[in-house]
Amino acid sequence: MYRKVLFMGNYEKVPKGFKFYGTHVGIKKKRKDFGLIVADAICHAAAVFTKNTFCGECIPIGRAHVENAELQAVVVTSGIANVATGQTGRENEYRILDSVSNQLQIETNNILPSSTGVIGPQLPIDLIETFLDAETIELKENYEDFAHAILTTDQQIKVRSITIGEATILGVVKGSGMIEPNMATMLAYVLTDAKIEKEEIYPMLKTAVDQSFNTISIDSDTSTSDTVAFLASRHYDVDKAALQMGLNQLCKELALAVVKDAEGATKTMFVTVKNAESKEQAKLAGKSIINSPLVKTALFGNDPNWGRIAMALGKTEGLVFDLNKVEIYYGDYAIFSNNNEEKQHIDQIAAYIKQHEDIYLTVDLHHGTECFEVIGCDLSYEYVKINSDYST
Amino acid sequence: MYRKVLFMGNYEKVPKGFKFYGTHVGIKKKRKDFGLIVADAICHAAAVFTKNTFCGECIPIGRAHVENAELQAVVVTSGIANVATGQTGRENEYRILDSVSNQLQIETNNILPSSTGVIGPQLPIDLIETFLDAETIELKENYEDFAHAILTTDQQIKVRSITIGEATILGVVKGSGMIEPNMATMLAYVLTDAKIEKEEIYPMLKTAVDQSFNTISIDSDTSTSDTVAFLASRHYDVDKAALQMGLNQLCKELALAVVKDAEGATKTMFVTVKNAESKEQAKLAGKSIINSPLVKTALFGNDPNWGRIAMALGKTEGLVFDLNKVEIYYGDYAIFSNNNEEKQHIDQIAAYIKQHEDIYLTVDLHHGTECFEVIGCDLSYEYVKINSDYST
Repeated sequence: MYRKVLFMGNYEKVPKGFKFYGTHVGIKKKRKDFGLIVADAICHAAAVFTKNTFCGECIPIGRAHVENAELQAVVVTSGIANVATGQTGRENEYRILDSVSNQLQIETNNILPSSTGVIGPQLPIDLIETFLDAETIELKENYEDFAHAILTTDQQIKVRSITIGEATILGVVKGSGMIEPNMATMLAYVLTDAKIEKEEIYPMLKTAVDQSFNTISIDSDTSTSDTVAFLASRHYDVDKAALQMGLNQLCKELALAVVKDAEGATKTMFVTVKNAESKEQAKLAGKSIINSPLVKTALFGNDPNWGRIAMALGKTEGLVFDLNKVEIYYGDYAIFSNNNEEKQHIDQIAAYIKQHEDIYLTVDLHHGTECFEVIGCDLSYEYVKINSDYST
Repeated sequence: MYRKVLFMGNYEKVPKGFKFYGTHVGIKKKRKDFGLIVADAICHAAAVFTKNTFCGECIPIGRAHVENAELQAVVVTSGIANVATGQTGRENEYRILDSVSNQLQIETNNILPSSTGVIGPQLPIDLIETFLDAETIELKENYEDFAHAILTTDQQIKVRSITIGEATILGVVKGSGMIEPNMATMLAYVLTDAKIEKEEIYPMLKTAVDQSFNTISIDSDTSTSDTVAFLASRHYDVDKAALQMGLNQLCKELALAVVKDAEGATKTMFVTVKNAESKEQAKLAGKSIINSPLVKTALFGNDPNWGRIAMALGKTEGLVFDLNKVEIYYGDYAIFSNNNEEKQHIDQIAAYIKQHEDIYLTVDLHHGTECFEVIGCDLSYEYVKINSDYST
């Protein structure tokens, strides 16, 4: 496993009322593996979680704690996912929550727990408890330690912020493999100091997640620990429509940051399927393309192999279209139209793929009026290396 | 691209009434790229084809020609798939059929055409026609030239035979990538001299295909040219139940031969999901496991990473099971049971995976009574190499 070392200062603005913590407690060998987000007071909050049936021990706990739309803190352990760890795993998660609760004087049921890493092993709970009992946690205004503490195979921290009037939204995300979000994704924490009512906060998050995290796929594998949590410390009153737009935009940027940090990836592919019968069909067709190992390896090889795009389109279950009307474009160049009666722009497209890291592919079905964009990446030697080495 | 050179004699028995041909006409640079199977008289026949909407020009032609359950010959071109080639592509296929029809004095509509290879380019039709007009085709009893002529990225020819009473069934298959058959698969030709009535032949083939080709996946990509054709020259009367069993067995061996020749694969994984609510759910869960890039890379790395198996099981849409009851076995060793309360046999399983090429994985859902086996392979550097190099 390797890691690009990028210097990244605290460039993103932190919303009022939140502090952070990140340290090494001993789950990983050396790197930070324990993180906290702590709000000054109880926040209105919402979260979406993985749909994977084999979900982590944190997921049902988190779901219960956020049910009343209130949270005050988030605790994350990284290196071990605490998935499929049975009664012991569940108890360990409560022991962490209790230690954090004692330290910070925050009620256990206002803390959202997350764990990410290898599936199967138990957390080194004694190490964690001993650390938390001995140490005095000093919270910081700066998110950097926290952002590092939640990483696994990620190559860099991924943080974005946006301001809406007086309010700020800050998002921190981790994830670079086992990523095809279904309803929720990876670990992402979105914080704001805007005022949001309890009944508004979940729909706002769901709207943003559907347009962002739910449109990306790195390897078609849905993680067992995916969580996106949204906490509002409620200091500033801002226009709700503007806030929703800002939240959508921020979630899109965070989702894109995940794809950009995809395991072994060298290119990002934005696939837009347009004029489909329904948004759902457009999304399925896009996912079929970005998840095809043959499309992904061709992209890695800088090969304008539109035949594989056609194959992936054709195998999409339930997709209705007429072969004779379909058009496929790389960037602005048509590579398939009029049922391939004329060869189009192969040289320009080969150059386009070679010269760009972001590849835009458009499939026009000319069948309906609905459109959807999904985002994926290539499949490289490095992906195979990372995932055949990353051991249990 | 590389190719293991294996000597393979004509060891398989050929059913009475069939002859073969294979040569180089100029689609590929050097290797054989044009093949024929010719029966002495009209056969009863059936075929199943790809469900990919973006299907090859041969598919609708073949479907029409086999509709009356009669065929006398099969013509295969390899190197170019003749997919998404429009009106010109369709015409080229008819020009090949006409040339073959003239040469062999067989009616065009009794010939099944297939093409396999790169999607997009047109066949070099002038080369093919010139060759067929000049050459006198000498048919052989031996299938070897034909079996070579239909290959693309395959590393070896794949031929099996079986005898049922006096009758013989012979199968020839090609395929090693873009393989997740849906109803039909790759190119496979199954010949027999057993007597089969017209109305029996399709159900017999469908039964065998569902238990064989439809249970394998190399890369989750469904090809645009998949065809399995079954021709009976009707010389010998044999017990139908025995014939069906023989056909099932032969198709299973051919399907397994395809997985064994999978692009870049080093290991074969047999996944049995048992005690599921339905066969369909068991199959979906099995496919989710063998198609997971993370499961496949772990297998390549000899890593007993059952957590990824759990993840793939959990993400299967519609699969109903209770986490606390699931058991996962490698070979005879349990690696997950009783919600992972006790660690089981990790060392033995690591050794088992390292020492075997065929890996047997069993998931017992303890939920229903239905069972299904699917067959897949690992994901290696070589797969990425082959598919990022194999160019348009």
